[in-house]
Amino acid sequence: MIVNIENGADLSKIQSELAGLGCWVGPVHISASGHRALLLKPYSAPVSAEDVRNIPGVESVLVAVSEHARMDSQMLPLTVAGVDFGTGTPVVMAGPCSVESEDQIYQAARRVAGCGAQFLRGGAYKPRTSPYSFQGHGAPGLRWLQGAATAFGLRTVTELLTPEQADLVACYADLIQIGSRNMQNMSLLRAAGQTGKPVLLKRGAAATLQEWLLAGEAALLAGAQTVLLCERGVRGFDPTTRNLLDLGTVAHLASLGLGIIVDPSHATGRRDLVLPLAQAGLAAGACGLLVETHDQPQTALSDGPQALTPHQFAQLMGSLALFGNRTRQSRSVDTEVAWGGVQ
Amino acid sequence: MIVNIENGADLSKIQSELAGLGCWVGPVHISASGHRALLLKPYSAPVSAEDVRNIPGVESVLVAVSEHARMDSQMLPLTVAGVDFGTGTPVVMAGPCSVESEDQIYQAARRVAGCGAQFLRGGAYKPRTSPYSFQGHGAPGLRWLQGAATAFGLRTVTELLTPEQADLVACYADLIQIGSRNMQNMSLLRAAGQTGKPVLLKRGAAATLQEWLLAGEAALLAGAQTVLLCERGVRGFDPTTRNLLDLGTVAHLASLGLGIIVDPSHATGRRDLVLPLAQAGLAAGACGLLVETHDQPQTALSDGPQALTPHQFAQLMGSLALFGNRTRQSRSVDTEVAWGGVQ
Amino acid sequence: MIVNIENGADLSKIQSELAGLGCWVGPVHISASGHRALLLKPYSAPVSAEDVRNIPGVESVLVAVSEHARMDSQMLPLTVAGVDFGTGTPVVMAGPCSVESEDQIYQAARRVAGCGAQFLRGGAYKPRTSPYSFQGHGAPGLRWLQGAATAFGLRTVTELLTPEQADLVACYADLIQIGSRNMQNMSLLRAAGQTGKPVLLKRGAAATLQEWLLAGEAALLAGAQTVLLCERGVRGFDPTTRNLLDLGTVAHLASLGLGIIVDPSHATGRRDLVLPLAQAGLAAGACGLLVETHDQPQTALSDGPQALTPHQFAQLMGSLALFGNRTRQSRSVDTEVAWGGVQ
Amino acid sequence: MIVNIENGADLSKIQSELAGLGCWVGPVHISASGHRALLLKPYSAPVSAEDVRNIPGVESVLVAVSEHARMDSQMLPLTVAGVDFGTGTPVVMAGPCSVESEDQIYQAARRVAGCGAQFLRGGAYKPRTSPYSFQGHGAPGLRWLQGAATAFGLRTVTELLTPEQADLVACYADLIQIGSRNMQNMSLLRAAGQTGKPVLLKRGAAATLQEWLLAGEAALLAGAQTVLLCERGVRGFDPTTRNLLDLGTVAHLASLGLGIIVDPSHATGRRDLVLPLAQAGLAAGACGLLVETHDQPQTALSDGPQALTPHQFAQLMGSLALFGNRTRQSRSVDTEVAWGGVQ
Repeated sequence: MIVNIENGADLSKIQSELAGLGCWVGPVHISASGHRALLLKPYSAPVSAEDVRNIPGVESVLVAVSEHARMDSQMLPLTVAGVDFGTGTPVVMAGPCSVESEDQIYQAARRVAGCGAQFLRGGAYKPRTSPYSFQGHGAPGLRWLQGAATAFGLRTVTELLTPEQADLVACYADLIQIGSRNMQNMSLLRAAGQTGKPVLLKRGAAATLQEWLLAGEAALLAGAQTVLLCERGVRGFDPTTRNLLDLGTVAHLASLGLGIIVDPSHATGRRDLVLPLAQAGLAAGACGLLVETHDQPQTALSDGPQALTPHQFAQLMGSLALFGNRTRQSRSVDTEVAWGGVQ
Repeated sequence: MIVNIENGADLSKIQSELAGLGCWVGPVHISASGHRALLLKPYSAPVSAEDVRNIPGVESVLVAVSEHARMDSQMLPLTVAGVDFGTGTPVVMAGPCSVESEDQIYQAARRVAGCGAQFLRGGAYKPRTSPYSFQGHGAPGLRWLQGAATAFGLRTVTELLTPEQADLVACYADLIQIGSRNMQNMSLLRAAGQTGKPVLLKRGAAATLQEWLLAGEAALLAGAQTVLLCERGVRGFDPTTRNLLDLGTVAHLASLGLGIIVDPSHATGRRDLVLPLAQAGLAAGACGLLVETHDQPQTALSDGPQALTPHQFAQLMGSLALFGNRTRQSRSVDTEVAWGGVQ
Repeated sequence: MIVNIENGADLSKIQSELAGLGCWVGPVHISASGHRALLLKPYSAPVSAEDVRNIPGVESVLVAVSEHARMDSQMLPLTVAGVDFGTGTPVVMAGPCSVESEDQIYQAARRVAGCGAQFLRGGAYKPRTSPYSFQGHGAPGLRWLQGAATAFGLRTVTELLTPEQADLVACYADLIQIGSRNMQNMSLLRAAGQTGKPVLLKRGAAATLQEWLLAGEAALLAGAQTVLLCERGVRGFDPTTRNLLDLGTVAHLASLGLGIIVDPSHATGRRDLVLPLAQAGLAAGACGLLVETHDQPQTALSDGPQALTPHQFAQLMGSLALFGNRTRQSRSVDTEVAWGGVQ
Repeated sequence: MIVNIENGADLSKIQSELAGLGCWVGPVHISASGHRALLLKPYSAPVSAEDVRNIPGVESVLVAVSEHARMDSQMLPLTVAGVDFGTGTPVVMAGPCSVESEDQIYQAARRVAGCGAQFLRGGAYKPRTSPYSFQGHGAPGLRWLQGAATAFGLRTVTELLTPEQADLVACYADLIQIGSRNMQNMSLLRAAGQTGKPVLLKRGAAATLQEWLLAGEAALLAGAQTVLLCERGVRGFDPTTRNLLDLGTVAHLASLGLGIIVDPSHATGRRDLVLPLAQAGLAAGACGLLVETHDQPQTALSDGPQALTPHQFAQLMGSLALFGNRTRQSRSVDTEVAWGGVQ
């Protein structure tokens, strides 16, 4: 946000009023003729242009035009694949990392549904860091996943890895996942969007919020019914943690009214930390969770160390009641300009 | 942790068992004579050497010797300045960023105590990014802080900026704060430790856990009664957030039984996000909070945008009851070696 | 590297010898029976197992088995698309960001060839952060690129964005580029590899060296003739720089004998900094450059601010003579185990 | 920089002209009355307000007022401690990490001077990550350092760790070093500045350019004769590299005419990579080097793995002739406003 200052106005008073509104002010800008303006830093609280204009000494206010208007308009509550998000009850998507066999996913679905989750997760196509790792069962995996989900009244969420499989995956997935490694894979976002299905968009390991929202915009522009965001940890610098869960961004998105869920499994890589970080994610404002659970983690073909045991998963589900009506703030809509933050 | 493998043992079975224990396994290591060993990645779950040794095919296990034995031994519950940490009730330290006047800090103390917090915070010496910003009132600020705290039965926590003021600050502070910019200021850590007071050690903006614990070790070695850690957000890459609160590290430290509090004010820079991130911090396992609150944020001499209003602070304090008995896991003590993680 | 210590040996003497070899030593590891071992930190200099075993007091040494043996075996000098890399003369790939018209790329090819570069670059399919930006001319762009290159005796390098276009792109590209956003797009790496063409693999914005080499391994495993690496800057935390060029990793790769080129255009985003960073990249050990140049940067459909003017490009090419025979160290091959670094 | 747009002007034409000048343009900002403005991104090339104002359709331009005017005015060439920086010949500061004995530093000085360096480095007070590591010899170390330097006509540079030693260190140091861990230690910067000596300010591991320049400003404001900057690598995310040398920032500072040197020893931690990164640093625009060398690295009390052997140091010094007259651009001074970048 650019704040133009009236000639002769007392700058420090205006800066104080802005701090009072929750805004951090950058350096003073001056023109050749002595005109002054202030820029608000991007991590300021969202404020309306009107509130700033009402500060004595402020001449005019310019707000950034959003580059992702479709994403901005998707405010909570939202219905995605027939399930309500943002109504106060967290939505849980759970299941194994990979669909390993028809029996495995069936047993997983039974437990996941029995504990009250709404979506069954499971990868049929696996994006692995090493080409020598297990790559998923493909089409049969998709069928097993859908069969198991249907048997227990669950929705399915599964990852799409390549555009040519978009139609196939769309047949079996209620919600199409775009993984972290593919967040800026524009061909894939387009293909996923063209199916008309809702999309779950995981954040890239070093993606800024702007890049993430623009990726969501690409899927919506191509035809996606909805885009739900999923924070799963960004790249950190400390070897002691697998990823760095960015709950400040979750809280920020929630404050804007956008739909964001948290994946505490990838965020930590440790099943003993999944419960505290799941709760932390909901406390920060997430409207749902994506969680890995496995009946026998020691036999999992991928991500065993972070899979909750059935007992731990039941414990997590039991603890969610606490997080019924989380703080949600309705986004203050600026009447002049579609939302663009305070850039 | 180094896991030596018996000759002829089935490596993939051992890897599965390790995944079952929550361990991520790095590449296989081989000697000239064909001996094999595995390394556990540092973000693995803490496991006991005995559990790993009991896996069939494991020949022996070597555990890292900790370089910060004094820090490791400071397990919760702890009494710091007469206040119990880690008993299930979060401890709250609150007050303005800076001590601005005798009256200001007196009014702040009244409110902070009235809402049930235990410590009064307020800076008399301010470490500012710019040399042209307000630098604090110095000694008078310390006296005002202590006077206000005493009047309302609060403990004091305030920042020490330079070794030569250590004795003076120790006269007025029940808990001496070492700020983020000074986390590796070894002279300051030594001076703070030599006062014999407990120390609150904020994490540096890019400090690894190992560096942080070694800094705490330096203060303990110099004589600090206790070192309490404070996570306040690390340097992130996204301009939309002021700092990146690392709750995975908080959960990890809590899982080891160590005392860690969270500063949601600096973590977000936005008063509207302090409440959700405070709750998230407690959910992740923090045993306390350090929060900025100001009676009139628009007049604050520093950090106004992140100061809670009195109303917001009362709301935060009211919400903490929920976070009574957080998940705490007793640290699994390895009987052979003082704790050294799974490095 | 795991260094097992003989019973009774003097640990500090061994640590000194290791430092003398250029190795950083992590914490001591101990077994239940008192056996000791040291781990070398991953940023240690590459040393041979034999040199470490020869230190008095060292019992045995275990070396990590590489997970990317195909990448490791691709040592310089290499011939890629008929051009020699790693012979002492830097190879230059240059041209506009996007192929904008047949005439534009023809003029570009004339200049690029005239200045002595070997490859003509130009995007026919553009991966943009925003779905509303110019997305490239597609197949006609590929034809124009090849036509222009052929007219002036240049090789072509252009980006592949989606698996279904792999065969088409392979018809026109001598070297298939995988962009930074797609570094871990495993379907794309496989499709590119299956064409049998050489691949230019740009580093992802937050990719570790291990992830990068595994991505290259995936392309080689699928059939790529060669994989050449390209460093173009990683995500940094400072808003003053567009990306953070990681020349330490370039120097490390060069010390291993691997083929790495540098893209100073994306690294800085500023044409006035391309020349110094191009030279710095070559000084660090890169065997080539990927550079954007445009006859009229102010009309460029993408990345105008970082495109060199024709004059600047000529100046850059003229300066390269200096960088003829850069320091190259032959990788010390360990006779027992395929290379796995000192992990 | 804020660029106000005339009513009715063609925005895309203005954006093209800005790209032609090397500027990246952020989102359009609009006021309630329809007035438009553009913000230039901070990683744009430095441009003068006049050049932007001359673009047709631009109404007016506002430039950020610098918050570090003293730093900005210290343009090259500079004479620091009697040595000229920025004249085309790189200045080299070399010696051991720590002053270990009178004899050691004497031998080091002989070699350093013999190879043509101008400053002798060596720490008498050592800031170590662990409190159990060697902390330096203190005052005797200072005397030995100065004695050795004097004997061979060298200047001295050594680190100041605590304010109370500022006067003592100033007696023996021609240039006072503030280390990376203390970059934002405001008491120390003030104490160093008050000695009136020139200061060498190393960049903090996660310091933005703005924070770094403000820290330098603090030293100048306190009385430092000059502040020379030293880039030594920032915190990266890849375990394979010790630090991440940020040569883009070096090139940016050089383009502004500021004095910046590079420390390739800490940047890499590997003596075999010091030579290529030293040359890369000079190519990027540094006006000098800070390098660790030790007669017997395997006996060094600190940082042995990164110390150059005498032979390697001689080789490095011999190679510097190449880097005589590096690209230096005089900073384009904006006539209206003291420099504030393009923020």
